[in-house]
Amino acid sequence: MVIVIADIIQGERIDDLQYKGLKIIQNPSVFCFGTDAVLLAGFTKTDMGSRAIDLCTGSGVIPMLVSARCGCHFDAVEIQENIADMAARSVAMNTMDGKISIIHGDIRNIELYCKKNSYHTVTCNPPYKKINSGKINESEYKAIARHELMCTIEDVVSAAWKLLVAGGKLFLIHRTDRFTELLHALEKGGLEPKRIRMIQPSAQKAPNLFMLEAVKQGKPGVQWEPALFVYDSEGNYTKEMKEIYHMEETLL
Amino acid sequence: MVIVIADIIQGERIDDLQYKGLKIIQNPSVFCFGTDAVLLAGFTKTDMGSRAIDLCTGSGVIPMLVSARCGCHFDAVEIQENIADMAARSVAMNTMDGKISIIHGDIRNIELYCKKNSYHTVTCNPPYKKINSGKINESEYKAIARHELMCTIEDVVSAAWKLLVAGGKLFLIHRTDRFTELLHALEKGGLEPKRIRMIQPSAQKAPNLFMLEAVKQGKPGVQWEPALFVYDSEGNYTKEMKEIYHMEETLL
Repeated sequence: MVIVIADIIQGERIDDLQYKGLKIIQNPSVFCFGTDAVLLAGFTKTDMGSRAIDLCTGSGVIPMLVSARCGCHFDAVEIQENIADMAARSVAMNTMDGKISIIHGDIRNIELYCKKNSYHTVTCNPPYKKINSGKINESEYKAIARHELMCTIEDVVSAAWKLLVAGGKLFLIHRTDRFTELLHALEKGGLEPKRIRMIQPSAQKAPNLFMLEAVKQGKPGVQWEPALFVYDSEGNYTKEMKEIYHMEETLL
Repeated sequence: MVIVIADIIQGERIDDLQYKGLKIIQNPSVFCFGTDAVLLAGFTKTDMGSRAIDLCTGSGVIPMLVSARCGCHFDAVEIQENIADMAARSVAMNTMDGKISIIHGDIRNIELYCKKNSYHTVTCNPPYKKINSGKINESEYKAIARHELMCTIEDVVSAAWKLLVAGGKLFLIHRTDRFTELLHALEKGGLEPKRIRMIQPSAQKAPNLFMLEAVKQGKPGVQWEPALFVYDSEGNYTKEMKEIYHMEETLL
């Protein structure tokens, strides 16, 4: 019998990740993960022997989903101390302490916390919005998670370059309106895009997000995947989205 | 009554473009246009007062379709003399001499034939393949049309930069495996991608082509369009493809 020990504080709740019994602590007034993180976890390819690291980890949902699927070890970095603490308690609740290490730190100085040139896999669901675009959320927690107040595209690429071994892979998700900026940053940062998938709200609607796999010192040549449609014509999740959310059925 | 005067030579045939009565001279052993050219013509946005130029024009299908739809004047450059001659005879056959000028020339020296900084619109359906990729066609005509023997991505971007006014637009189609190269070439060449559309053989298949609109000295920020599906699940052209091929119904 597994006893779940939930170490939660006021305002927090425990949600079911619907995958291998995983639970996660969230706090609606501080930070909740979105669909994007689940999509990126599904897009990430790694294996048991790999050393992986998740940047801007938030609640830790990506390392939990990917490590539970692939068996790899994750370090996971979060700049906001109380969110890092919440993620660490989720890891402990799932008895994944041996697989996931939550680090409270700033990816702009990643070498202070993590060994350079030592990771096979970097994942990142970064803040999407430029500082001068859109209203900054009144909650400092949410503002930092959504706007590039403490982490830009260039910061993510620079950290990935420092962390990855040659041939190591960065997996990330971002908004389509930042697509060209990201590609330019990757080129300048020595990471070559190798696999791209656009995400459309439906088959008829323009993509608003994309996922990308880039390889440190990789050769040119990118493989495109079919666009992922989130909703069908009746407004329900598509079959593929349901599969991504219930990974047991398809990804093992 | 319109009398069509067809000035054709051995091996050539006259095809119906199924748009505003346009006919085109083609020669299967030399050059026939493909679906890609029709798609790019449909993707190109320009207007009657614009000065436009088509690079690597081949049979001249893009200027004929776009000029017939938008009313703009086109210069159209083709490096192979007998293909340029064939295109000029198609233009004459359609009595579009006042609207389209076919130029036999090399876009690598475009300033010898055309005035710099004077076009609002550049279109190009270039050769897709790198010289060292895939078998070079035994026909010199087809080899030059398909492989970058006389025109690379960088040549197209450089010519577009020379030709366009500030704010002028380049419309092109290319293969997805050259996507990142093209984006890097555009960045280096001072052309900013503003609109992108991926082309998938079907909703379930990965894109193999894309169309892109780039603006000379444009500001960053790209608008993505929904992926275009060529065939439906039964292997027939999708409704949108039929619309693109019968432009009268949708694009006027």
